[in-house]
Amino acid sequence: MSLEIVFVMVGTTHTGNLGAAARAMKTMGFTTMRLVDTCSHLSAEALARSSGANDVLKNAQSFDTLADAIADCRVVVGTSARARQLAVPLLACREIADEIGSLSQSLPDGEKVAMVFGQERSGLSNESLDLCTRLLRIPCNPDFSSLNLGSAVQVVSYELSQAIASVPLGAPIPMPGKWKGSTEAVDASDNSADPDDLPATSEAMGHFFDHLDRVMISTGFMNPDNPRLLRRRVRRYFEANRPTGNELAIFRGILSATEKPRNR
Amino acid sequence: MSLEIVFVMVGTTHTGNLGAAARAMKTMGFTTMRLVDTCSHLSAEALARSSGANDVLKNAQSFDTLADAIADCRVVVGTSARARQLAVPLLACREIADEIGSLSQSLPDGEKVAMVFGQERSGLSNESLDLCTRLLRIPCNPDFSSLNLGSAVQVVSYELSQAIASVPLGAPIPMPGKWKGSTEAVDASDNSADPDDLPATSEAMGHFFDHLDRVMISTGFMNPDNPRLLRRRVRRYFEANRPTGNELAIFRGILSATEKPRNR
Repeated sequence: MSLEIVFVMVGTTHTGNLGAAARAMKTMGFTTMRLVDTCSHLSAEALARSSGANDVLKNAQSFDTLADAIADCRVVVGTSARARQLAVPLLACREIADEIGSLSQSLPDGEKVAMVFGQERSGLSNESLDLCTRLLRIPCNPDFSSLNLGSAVQVVSYELSQAIASVPLGAPIPMPGKWKGSTEAVDASDNSADPDDLPATSEAMGHFFDHLDRVMISTGFMNPDNPRLLRRRVRRYFEANRPTGNELAIFRGILSATEKPRNR
Repeated sequence: MSLEIVFVMVGTTHTGNLGAAARAMKTMGFTTMRLVDTCSHLSAEALARSSGANDVLKNAQSFDTLADAIADCRVVVGTSARARQLAVPLLACREIADEIGSLSQSLPDGEKVAMVFGQERSGLSNESLDLCTRLLRIPCNPDFSSLNLGSAVQVVSYELSQAIASVPLGAPIPMPGKWKGSTEAVDASDNSADPDDLPATSEAMGHFFDHLDRVMISTGFMNPDNPRLLRRRVRRYFEANRPTGNELAIFRGILSATEKPRNR
């Protein structure tokens, strides 16, 4: 029941919005904020707008890149106002919340899920979206979809708190393929799951993708001077269906085996 | 299906909050605001905070009393941060929204439901609460329940829009679960999708698995005499997350590339 939800703010330009986001998070019981390339989160305006959620701002950690900020997270949800091509699955806010609510029954305490919020106007870059396992959209008025950052964080944290709290305690829910990223059967009655049966961390995924790049380049399959679409397609497939640690170990084993000298 | 939801603001003291409320309403497709004994709703600050929902503010009607403001409404929901000694049922936001969602199926078009928001600090007076048919509470952190007015209106209108489903979705959202195996964005308006963007056929999957077996065996990664668990794990992963034809083509391309003689 105690998944840790990590709110990652990327490129935020208005300091007051960081305060509003902190306040919104805390009203729903969430306190972990991480920052990537944002404006100041400790300005007088940010603290004022947080309206007493100063602790969230003061404990917020800064990271150089989004990859660093989510390295220890097993699920990474990007929030995006726009539908994009070639994206990982785009789901409505409630569907994502329900998925995470189910996960909170099976993941051990303290495992981390990231909710990533982009810059106020431009949103998340394609590079950032490529690090996400899911995209979230808040359904809204197509003629006026102007939710500000604080409002978006408010709706998302409200939905998450509803989904996580509404899951009946002590009544293990079978997870028939609900979380499709894992193909291992989950025994909900056993909370001391092998961490390698959980979706891999973002850090482990990064190592896997690096390895895959090396193989694709050394075999001549991918032109390193123009890898973009191919690389993105492969990454998005595996991010949308994030393997477990055990599965990743197999894939890396296959890659390593292809790199060894062959006996013919 | 076209109940009219009327947002009634009572005793609001901060003009910016009226702008934020108008913006929040409009993002979820609601535009009817009524005012009782509030500060100015047409100040520069209110208009600025509405961020383009000026029409909601300009069309807002003022009333002398709450009784007047809700005279034509059949359901009146009071919002209250505090539990009170009360007569009418106090329900969570989602329960109220579900009730109103059901009502929207049975009430004739144009019938009105009021959502009443009190003064920022003191909330609704007992006299006002007595005019309500329901009380609504937004579940939140018991130690930090400081939702501001705009955030409360945002959550309530979001829940209502979800329950009534009167808000057309701006961009197509894939059906829940249906496309989880595909990482391609789905254009719901286009029914003549490229078959290679659909989950691959079982036949194609079979060829892929055969190819993968050959590579795993030729590289020495899998012992063909005892392949069982390894092979099953790999297959289950890809079957649970069946790639599209396009994705499969890439994977097979990688496998073929590793089989070619290498230039070192």
